[in-house]
Amino acid sequence: MNPPRGMRDILPADKERRERVLSVIRERYRAHGFDEIETPALEEYSRLHAGIGGDNEKLAFNVLRRGLDAEAIREAAADPAALADLGLRYDLTVPLARFYASNRGQLPGVFRSIQIGPVWRAERPQKGRYRQFVQCDIDVIGDDSARAEAELMVASLDALDALGLEGATVRINDRRALDWMLETFGFTLEERPGVLITIDKLDKIGPDGVIAELRDRALRAVPEPAGGREPDLRPIDAFEAFLRRPQTLEYNPFGERQIRKALPEDAPDEIVAHLVGIGDAVAAGSGAQDVPLVFDPFLVRGMGYYTGTIMELAHPSVGYSLGGGGRYDGMIGRFLGQQVPAVGFSLGFERLVDLVADDAGTGAQAVVLIHDADVPVSELVAHKARLVGEGARVRLERRTKNLKALLERSAADGYTSFAAVAAGAAELELKPLS
Amino acid sequence: MNPPRGMRDILPADKERRERVLSVIRERYRAHGFDEIETPALEEYSRLHAGIGGDNEKLAFNVLRRGLDAEAIREAAADPAALADLGLRYDLTVPLARFYASNRGQLPGVFRSIQIGPVWRAERPQKGRYRQFVQCDIDVIGDDSARAEAELMVASLDALDALGLEGATVRINDRRALDWMLETFGFTLEERPGVLITIDKLDKIGPDGVIAELRDRALRAVPEPAGGREPDLRPIDAFEAFLRRPQTLEYNPFGERQIRKALPEDAPDEIVAHLVGIGDAVAAGSGAQDVPLVFDPFLVRGMGYYTGTIMELAHPSVGYSLGGGGRYDGMIGRFLGQQVPAVGFSLGFERLVDLVADDAGTGAQAVVLIHDADVPVSELVAHKARLVGEGARVRLERRTKNLKALLERSAADGYTSFAAVAAGAAELELKPLS
Repeated sequence: MNPPRGMRDILPADKERRERVLSVIRERYRAHGFDEIETPALEEYSRLHAGIGGDNEKLAFNVLRRGLDAEAIREAAADPAALADLGLRYDLTVPLARFYASNRGQLPGVFRSIQIGPVWRAERPQKGRYRQFVQCDIDVIGDDSARAEAELMVASLDALDALGLEGATVRINDRRALDWMLETFGFTLEERPGVLITIDKLDKIGPDGVIAELRDRALRAVPEPAGGREPDLRPIDAFEAFLRRPQTLEYNPFGERQIRKALPEDAPDEIVAHLVGIGDAVAAGSGAQDVPLVFDPFLVRGMGYYTGTIMELAHPSVGYSLGGGGRYDGMIGRFLGQQVPAVGFSLGFERLVDLVADDAGTGAQAVVLIHDADVPVSELVAHKARLVGEGARVRLERRTKNLKALLERSAADGYTSFAAVAAGAAELELKPLS
Repeated sequence: MNPPRGMRDILPADKERRERVLSVIRERYRAHGFDEIETPALEEYSRLHAGIGGDNEKLAFNVLRRGLDAEAIREAAADPAALADLGLRYDLTVPLARFYASNRGQLPGVFRSIQIGPVWRAERPQKGRYRQFVQCDIDVIGDDSARAEAELMVASLDALDALGLEGATVRINDRRALDWMLETFGFTLEERPGVLITIDKLDKIGPDGVIAELRDRALRAVPEPAGGREPDLRPIDAFEAFLRRPQTLEYNPFGERQIRKALPEDAPDEIVAHLVGIGDAVAAGSGAQDVPLVFDPFLVRGMGYYTGTIMELAHPSVGYSLGGGGRYDGMIGRFLGQQVPAVGFSLGFERLVDLVADDAGTGAQAVVLIHDADVPVSELVAHKARLVGEGARVRLERRTKNLKALLERSAADGYTSFAAVAAGAAELELKPLS
């Protein structure tokens, strides 16, 4: 009688908190000039499996074609993809690119979107990870300047502040800086994706682990009967020397000098200027002396579609990321046949909800009316309607043997006062709960 | 590049209106003591196809099992259901019954739920009907008294009032009254489901159409070589005489006398008392002299799971129903193995959205900042942040050749004023849009 494996029911107290958090996020993002849109939960199978979604494509829930007959099913044994024509979206980015291609004529020149909705992934269920969860994305489409990244960050930091989560910072890097760095050290084009996957683990396995894994992969990459050929470990040695420089960890305060110090010498001006531009604009937008930005030359982020800036949201109260995003200038072109710059930021909604305080704090009175079986239905409904009309939230409860338990549950459900209703009573005496 | 067949993208203006309507409905239902819950979009295939969902079961989008190999697919040719293990919900009632069975121990004795979310049906696409649409349900589980129906109606009418749709009425009937009536006229148990399907068309085809269809079906039901046996048309004659009574149409004001007048003689006291109880409680709760209830002895509503009261929401501004519901005391027992009374009411959200006025009317200032390419990004972001900090909603727009078109689009997007931003300007001069 449970929900499907890896999925969950959301009970009233949780649901109330989730909707409260969403309405704060919505309201703040709207204030910053973003507009909410919605796409269907289902997209064409072919679009979800076009190589844009990375590893998530394999995790898609696919929808069985309607009206398949026995012969069509037998034929599909050779080509299982023929069984499905649709799939549930596994992220909000692929649908956004499709949406933009469909509706571009009706959207502003620079389109700032909000998308809030569930996505589905058939991942192996584990604690705190669900097969249906809510994503909460903002994106700026049509602006290749640092302003786009700055607007995403200023709006997201403002939303976090409004949720009572002040003090967040954003780690930032640029995929082009990573590429350039790996090229500088001498890694080949073929080696770089694997190297990035390893560097992405730096937070978890540390510099020793990263170097060990890089060496291990390089040794394994040379076929056994290699005629005495040795793997070229010089790029790894160069990377190790750079990684272990003591000053690499001094990123702050954010600015050109720090960015250049954190990268190998002679980093390309264009990349540095874009990062500095983001920092200046975030400083101007957040009004903070101390820009809430940290340059991290080893930040990778998994998605293959990132082409420039990458960002990850950190908060001092937790050890894990609360969101992130990046520039994906290539993706919309895949749908539209015309290059359009784009950058997005996704708040980790499911994690945020756990951090936000429980108190609704709406200040409105919430009353439980406790009654015996002999009170006529219309009297009860009239009492309730009068209090609702006065602005209260009201629940009717039949008196149970254990009145204390009833009152405790009502308080837990957010009710603030109660009254016992007797048949024929004109007035109710409200008493505080708890 | 469009959404899947029969589905749609929702653009900013529509999405804003939808969220605004939902937040009013949520807020009003919560005030009336209902609590929002959420269930996954997917349910087990077997639960969605257990015969509870009626015709909707055939319309389910089913989800392909993961990891099927060629042999499993070939075997499924004989049993296509083996290809799917999950399905997208086609309503919110089957999931609610499953939710209640899963979570009963954590819910109040009488549980009043709000559910708002999309459902999916693979219907033939047609104008105004979509394959994904939002349902908005409230249900009372665990109360068999007229109070449950009254709470649903009072809360729903209050929500409509809050949306500016005053003056709605609810047509009401009871499935047991229909059953009793058909039995009184002499229809057999086997005939009654077909007769109800025909009576359900009364609004569309009128009394003549209903009687013609009933006769036609009765004649066709007798096999050709019937040895001269004539169909028994007496029940239809009796029904016709009743249907054509002039006083049948005088249902108002709502009360015992009118209900008894609208039914054949000697209607069962229990059914009449339940209806009268609902009327009294709605009168007490709505504070209206004129109860917004109309007894309609020919109201049927399609779903097979209804067991008692059935309701349909009407509004003078439109010719179609804006929602409805009924009692389904049997369904939860199917999941729980224990009878629990339940009654639900579903607002026709997609229709309501079209009726609600377009004006957001939040009163907040919404400003478009128009700038040339030479204004530094950080100045723009600083101007924006200052206005956002003062409570405005702000969008940045690069100046285009056709400034008039830009201003018109901004006004259409809900912006109320604009300012031109020059490089180095300390002050902005806001001008009204339109």
